[in-house]
Amino acid sequence: MSLKSFLIGQPIETHREKHERLSKFTGLAIFASDNLSSVAYATEEILLALVVAGSALLNFALPIAIAISALLAIIAISYFQTIHAYPSGGGSYIVAKDNLGDNAGLVSGAALLIDYVLTVSVSITAGVAAITSAIPSLASHTVLLCLIAIGVLMLGNLRGVREAGRIFSVPTYFFIFSLFALIGLGLFKVATGAPVPPPGPPLAATESYLAVFVILRAFASGCAAVTGIEAVSNGVRAFKPPEARNASQTLLIMASILGISFVGTSFLADHFHILPVANQTVLSQLAAIVFGGRGIPYYLLQAATALILILAANTSFQDFPRLSSVMAADGFMPRQFGSRGDRLVFSNGILILGLFAAVLVVAFGGDTHRLIPLYALGVFLAITLSQAGMVRHWLRTRERKWLRNTFINGFGAITTAVVVAIFAITKFTEGGWIVLIAIPVIVYLTHQVKKHYDSIARQLSLEGAAPEVEFEHHSVIVPVSGVQRAVIQAIKYAKVLSDDVVAVYVCFDEDEMEMVRKKWEEFGMGVPLRVLDSPYRSVIEPLMDYIEDVRVLQPDGVITVVLPEFVPQKWWHHLLHNQTALLIKGILLFKRGVVSTSVPMHLES
Amino acid sequence: MSLKSFLIGQPIETHREKHERLSKFTGLAIFASDNLSSVAYATEEILLALVVAGSALLNFALPIAIAISALLAIIAISYFQTIHAYPSGGGSYIVAKDNLGDNAGLVSGAALLIDYVLTVSVSITAGVAAITSAIPSLASHTVLLCLIAIGVLMLGNLRGVREAGRIFSVPTYFFIFSLFALIGLGLFKVATGAPVPPPGPPLAATESYLAVFVILRAFASGCAAVTGIEAVSNGVRAFKPPEARNASQTLLIMASILGISFVGTSFLADHFHILPVANQTVLSQLAAIVFGGRGIPYYLLQAATALILILAANTSFQDFPRLSSVMAADGFMPRQFGSRGDRLVFSNGILILGLFAAVLVVAFGGDTHRLIPLYALGVFLAITLSQAGMVRHWLRTRERKWLRNTFINGFGAITTAVVVAIFAITKFTEGGWIVLIAIPVIVYLTHQVKKHYDSIARQLSLEGAAPEVEFEHHSVIVPVSGVQRAVIQAIKYAKVLSDDVVAVYVCFDEDEMEMVRKKWEEFGMGVPLRVLDSPYRSVIEPLMDYIEDVRVLQPDGVITVVLPEFVPQKWWHHLLHNQTALLIKGILLFKRGVVSTSVPMHLES
Repeated sequence: MSLKSFLIGQPIETHREKHERLSKFTGLAIFASDNLSSVAYATEEILLALVVAGSALLNFALPIAIAISALLAIIAISYFQTIHAYPSGGGSYIVAKDNLGDNAGLVSGAALLIDYVLTVSVSITAGVAAITSAIPSLASHTVLLCLIAIGVLMLGNLRGVREAGRIFSVPTYFFIFSLFALIGLGLFKVATGAPVPPPGPPLAATESYLAVFVILRAFASGCAAVTGIEAVSNGVRAFKPPEARNASQTLLIMASILGISFVGTSFLADHFHILPVANQTVLSQLAAIVFGGRGIPYYLLQAATALILILAANTSFQDFPRLSSVMAADGFMPRQFGSRGDRLVFSNGILILGLFAAVLVVAFGGDTHRLIPLYALGVFLAITLSQAGMVRHWLRTRERKWLRNTFINGFGAITTAVVVAIFAITKFTEGGWIVLIAIPVIVYLTHQVKKHYDSIARQLSLEGAAPEVEFEHHSVIVPVSGVQRAVIQAIKYAKVLSDDVVAVYVCFDEDEMEMVRKKWEEFGMGVPLRVLDSPYRSVIEPLMDYIEDVRVLQPDGVITVVLPEFVPQKWWHHLLHNQTALLIKGILLFKRGVVSTSVPMHLES
Repeated sequence: MSLKSFLIGQPIETHREKHERLSKFTGLAIFASDNLSSVAYATEEILLALVVAGSALLNFALPIAIAISALLAIIAISYFQTIHAYPSGGGSYIVAKDNLGDNAGLVSGAALLIDYVLTVSVSITAGVAAITSAIPSLASHTVLLCLIAIGVLMLGNLRGVREAGRIFSVPTYFFIFSLFALIGLGLFKVATGAPVPPPGPPLAATESYLAVFVILRAFASGCAAVTGIEAVSNGVRAFKPPEARNASQTLLIMASILGISFVGTSFLADHFHILPVANQTVLSQLAAIVFGGRGIPYYLLQAATALILILAANTSFQDFPRLSSVMAADGFMPRQFGSRGDRLVFSNGILILGLFAAVLVVAFGGDTHRLIPLYALGVFLAITLSQAGMVRHWLRTRERKWLRNTFINGFGAITTAVVVAIFAITKFTEGGWIVLIAIPVIVYLTHQVKKHYDSIARQLSLEGAAPEVEFEHHSVIVPVSGVQRAVIQAIKYAKVLSDDVVAVYVCFDEDEMEMVRKKWEEFGMGVPLRVLDSPYRSVIEPLMDYIEDVRVLQPDGVITVVLPEFVPQKWWHHLLHNQTALLIKGILLFKRGVVSTSVPMHLES
């Protein structure tokens, strides 16, 4: 208990829950980290996808970045609509479920949950890559550093860091500033004709390839930049009034910053002939060139990059538990995800997210590049379903400007659907299949969960039921292994339950039985002792037969089996006792009309 | 249940336990396999220990084998005495404990238990080596083959193969015959001057060495041959009368056969310039030379070797459970080792032995040679303690010929003590340290176990206790999470326990509480509903406070907390329910004067 308090703090009272409303300035800081941070790795992923073709396709990097920025704009405008239509918070799960039905909602929900896990893994590994690029001696501890970062985020969120939202402004604006400084200085150098490092020798293709496939795969990899754009639409209610307007403007500002910096860094990387290498990120290489070596500006940018990436991972620690609590409220996820812990946060969601992210980091060796093929597919699927849901929404409500809105969201839905198809095809063999299998599996499981809860609710319902009548008889049976204090305690307790108490002794040995009978005279508290024979040395079978006999005799009664139970002071002492009582309890659990009770005997050592 | 029956057979009734008495002929077959089978690897281990010095010390192999045979003779004569002094079975544990006290007995017991595990590992890996020498294509499956063999032995012993003791005669005598045929034919070839393969080029030492150390280590390695000699003394009672005479004669015959065949194979290996190689045993090489290639005689010998080694492992499956049951009867091992399973065998001992042996095989990669440094140390320690115990026995009893007997056992004890010292020094760094640490750890644990049982016995004892008086009052508390069928079942059950039943509802939400109160009117069976406030959303704390209040009010009464419990049809459905009831039960377990009871509600799906 005290370790828990130390790690996650004292419990918080329920009534202290409140919503601090956000201005556009703080709102941007809080919701933008996931989205903006992808500048740290998106250009590099495009280049990495292109180099399998050698030098031949490298000049496609900038056009791809521009195409992705256009896609970003389309999605931003689509979400602008959603925010105004769902001012109380329009996550994809809700929009898809409301307009397209449960299954669309669940596919969207499953896809998002998967992507929240991946956001943590990808952001943390990329953040650690920023650190190890600056401090190469840490490179061999990559996985450990990732796990530490996940652990810190998990603990922080279990404590409820959400409340400290304002602190987040610092790293976000610090990163935006550093990035703009880099791009500005870079463009200035380009404009003034600063010397450019000579391009390396032409690279040979590492495999035979289909140019269009490689380009589409590079596009898909770069699309990781778009993730996080849906964050604002989930959190409309967190903004100061007018909520929808503030939120939608924040969204547009965010998308613009991302578009500019993404195209900017891609242009500079191309201009300065930067290629992805093993132990240094592309952004780190670019910073070293533009800032003229590893001076203070370089280290500041790396620090800002690492910070915002960790912040990006942190947003998932709020999104995942929130989405799973919404799905739990609908009965599609285990109820435990819906209950808040001591600190008012959805602790189970936080723990599960941290666990899955850690597993992914370990499984993929802390390598961002190997995680990317799994990433963003879920987000784009969710965006597609969300936009399709909005189309349906406009067609149904025929609100003001419905035709224009239908067109905008429809265009968005078609665009992102095409992107999903590109993802599924180009990333399938590199790990995309995992996600494509996981989504239907999760959807299936959510249905099973729902089915179970519905069935329970039906079985527990007292709707139209008559009040219960009392039991006609209570038989109490005490299995006795010998005459000792724990057994006598059980007998003493049994006597307070009913007047019909029988002690039952399973006999293996005639001599021992005589001894038991004699001692029973003295200590048995007047309870009759029934001796059962057991040729196979089993306690269970003769006992169960006896219980069954009693049950048949008293069909409208109830039977209680009272068992003594040792409560040792050290856990390993459990191993020193035959667990016959536990076995009996386990079997009785499935026998109707029988309740088993353990009377604890507290051992001193 | 049916899987268990299929694997280990139907239960056997207690009264069917009987001792089939053994003649010398069957007795030798049953008790000798462990001892004799070591011929399969002992010579090889001596050579392996010597080759670190290159060719320089190889000619010491035969003298070492002769020295070990002399040691064998000394130990056999010592045990001859023990058998006559302890005709009811004089294992080292019993002899050492009786004469030198608990600690000597426990050291001896721990050492033997460790060595039984090692006997399984060493014999199985050596048996598999005999197979893979003959069929090299199986070599890559060594560990798997070892694990299969251990699994088969485990299942066989859980079924109770002991009964089929007579079958064992076949492989033992088959092995003795094959071995004698090999040695006889070999000596004949030597006598008739058959061509000898030319010795290889002289080998260089693989490390700088101290000759005396290498020789002593080779001696220690070869001492593995002696293991299993104590088996007869454990099983005196299994022989036909006159038990002691039959047993002691069997012992002498066994030692003679081992001595002859060990020295014989060592001589032939030396004569034919055989050196240990990676994928073929020394015995296999020798057989191929003597039998003139891989004909039928060669394959018969390999088969006999594999069979007797598996049989040797099997003896441990009888010795380990038997010794641990004896130690359990004394309270030094968990009681579970003392109870016979369905098939009258000590199932827990068999399972634990199989598990540990399998772990060792996996940890040491199925390599006999890497296991040898751990082996035999325990046996020699046990033999030393047993002989020392016998010295004490003679000095105390002053029976007939006590002076002669004291001398014989004293000489045996000193000799084996020297061997133990040689072991500890020469094998320490190669793994011997594991055993030297494990023995005191096990001895410590056995004392802890004994202490716990003694303490329990004191606490449970009714010696001089007055008969118990009945409880003055019974308060029943039913925590209620809402008004539904499971809760009402719990209330119905509670009402049969006492007239003082209170339902307790922990309130988080005023509106919900009003609804609960209204429904309670209808379904509550007249039980009063008590509402508790919970500012921190915890169910536990207000409930525990309430229980504490009731306890203080009725100090001479007892409290029962009745909880509804879902019994789902599928195990994973447990994950879908808040385990609050489990948590409450866990906490109440440690509260004196409170008993918690679960009323099962059987869910349909």
